[in-house]
Amino acid sequence: MPCYKLTVAYDGTEFHGWQKQEPPEKEPLRTAQGVLEQAVREVVREQVYIQGASRTDSGVHARGQVAVFTTEREFPLERLPRAINGRLPDDIQVRKADVVADDFDPISHCTSKGYRYRIAHSIGKSGLKPLFDRHYVAWSPHVLDVAAMHDAAQRLVGEHDFASLTRVAHGRESTVRTVYACDVTATSKRRLRIDISGNGFLYNMIRIIAGTLTEVGRGKIKPETIDEILQARDRAAAGSTMVPEGLCLMWVKYGERDAP
Amino acid sequence: MPCYKLTVAYDGTEFHGWQKQEPPEKEPLRTAQGVLEQAVREVVREQVYIQGASRTDSGVHARGQVAVFTTEREFPLERLPRAINGRLPDDIQVRKADVVADDFDPISHCTSKGYRYRIAHSIGKSGLKPLFDRHYVAWSPHVLDVAAMHDAAQRLVGEHDFASLTRVAHGRESTVRTVYACDVTATSKRRLRIDISGNGFLYNMIRIIAGTLTEVGRGKIKPETIDEILQARDRAAAGSTMVPEGLCLMWVKYGERDAP
Repeated sequence: MPCYKLTVAYDGTEFHGWQKQEPPEKEPLRTAQGVLEQAVREVVREQVYIQGASRTDSGVHARGQVAVFTTEREFPLERLPRAINGRLPDDIQVRKADVVADDFDPISHCTSKGYRYRIAHSIGKSGLKPLFDRHYVAWSPHVLDVAAMHDAAQRLVGEHDFASLTRVAHGRESTVRTVYACDVTATSKRRLRIDISGNGFLYNMIRIIAGTLTEVGRGKIKPETIDEILQARDRAAAGSTMVPEGLCLMWVKYGERDAP
Repeated sequence: MPCYKLTVAYDGTEFHGWQKQEPPEKEPLRTAQGVLEQAVREVVREQVYIQGASRTDSGVHARGQVAVFTTEREFPLERLPRAINGRLPDDIQVRKADVVADDFDPISHCTSKGYRYRIAHSIGKSGLKPLFDRHYVAWSPHVLDVAAMHDAAQRLVGEHDFASLTRVAHGRESTVRTVYACDVTATSKRRLRIDISGNGFLYNMIRIIAGTLTEVGRGKIKPETIDEILQARDRAAAGSTMVPEGLCLMWVKYGERDAP
């Protein structure tokens, strides 16, 4: 039973997130997993199930989501992305296919994930918000201090209890995670990005980190206060949850088990 | 009677072009001119009419469209863009406002216009088309020779009869226009852009030029053949009309008369 690992990119704007949602007695919602699963079934002509590495929220984008399925038959790897892409709508695409071991689990075998959060800031007197990339960037009307944000972000690196930085009903037993890196970089005069990687992220964690770092950027929270926010283990201590469209799942990494 | 000149940007994806369309006994179509006119009327509280410099087609974008209106009263220039933007949807925005002479005509006083056409090419074995910017770029499955396209484009520069490079029912008496510059540049390994400026353009002219240069790029037409295509004065001699989403009106320039 060959197991295929797909690297998948999608524009989250018109998806109700990654995860399949088929409410009883209602039309199923349009999700990335649902749309991809249907295309893969048409190609392999089997009732396969797609499992993803990350449950991205509605409106969140992906460049390197990982999706896995197992089939009875073998398919030539080099032709698989094109065959699936030919059956996908234009807002989702398979960028790569690999064969992995048949016990490969895209969630529990994952060793790290990387996300990017984009912010446009300081819209100025003219009130100009992002136009052509408005579905891929958040915006703040304030001038943000990128150096202060980067300074604050370093306090998130390492193993911490991130209970203050996740939704209250997060549904996880442990709120301890390890952040490997969190870099805030100016990409132009009025644009910045937050690149964050870690061994796992809690529900809404990156969007709340983005909201909290934005408060630092506009001077409402001092970089040092991040330590107190972490210690509080209280969602109310942190900044607001920023909009989903600024967020993109960039990559998912696996260790030795990735190989067949 | 002060006359205001607005520099307007819009994402053409969800507009039925620039020009107001109000078919009798039907809902008016959503156009950039119609949406902008309504917002300006709310700000100035007068039944003003907006006149634009270029009638962009459905799906075509603009970074520097020029729109003009005359009012009874005066408005502070520095506050005008923000006031109008506050009443506009998120796919159109006023980037700048100026006062011009009250006989200013955005069409007949225009001295040059610049457009950009973007193409993604060579989608490769994986069949990957543009994803996140798919509404702002055309694509060709072929590998395109950018140098040959630029060479061919130089043959369009100057005063020519562009009858071969416009829609048959173009609705204009003269098909003679002057192209000031036409540069084809690689922006990355699989991306290129065509920057074209001139004293005026015929209906579909740039999209047909893009289609013809793409034929040159894939080796179907030699650069020298451009001269014959121009001489033919026959639409059938040129390449196909490329999709509207690759096209963007970049700027509109005026001479001395631009000043009040």
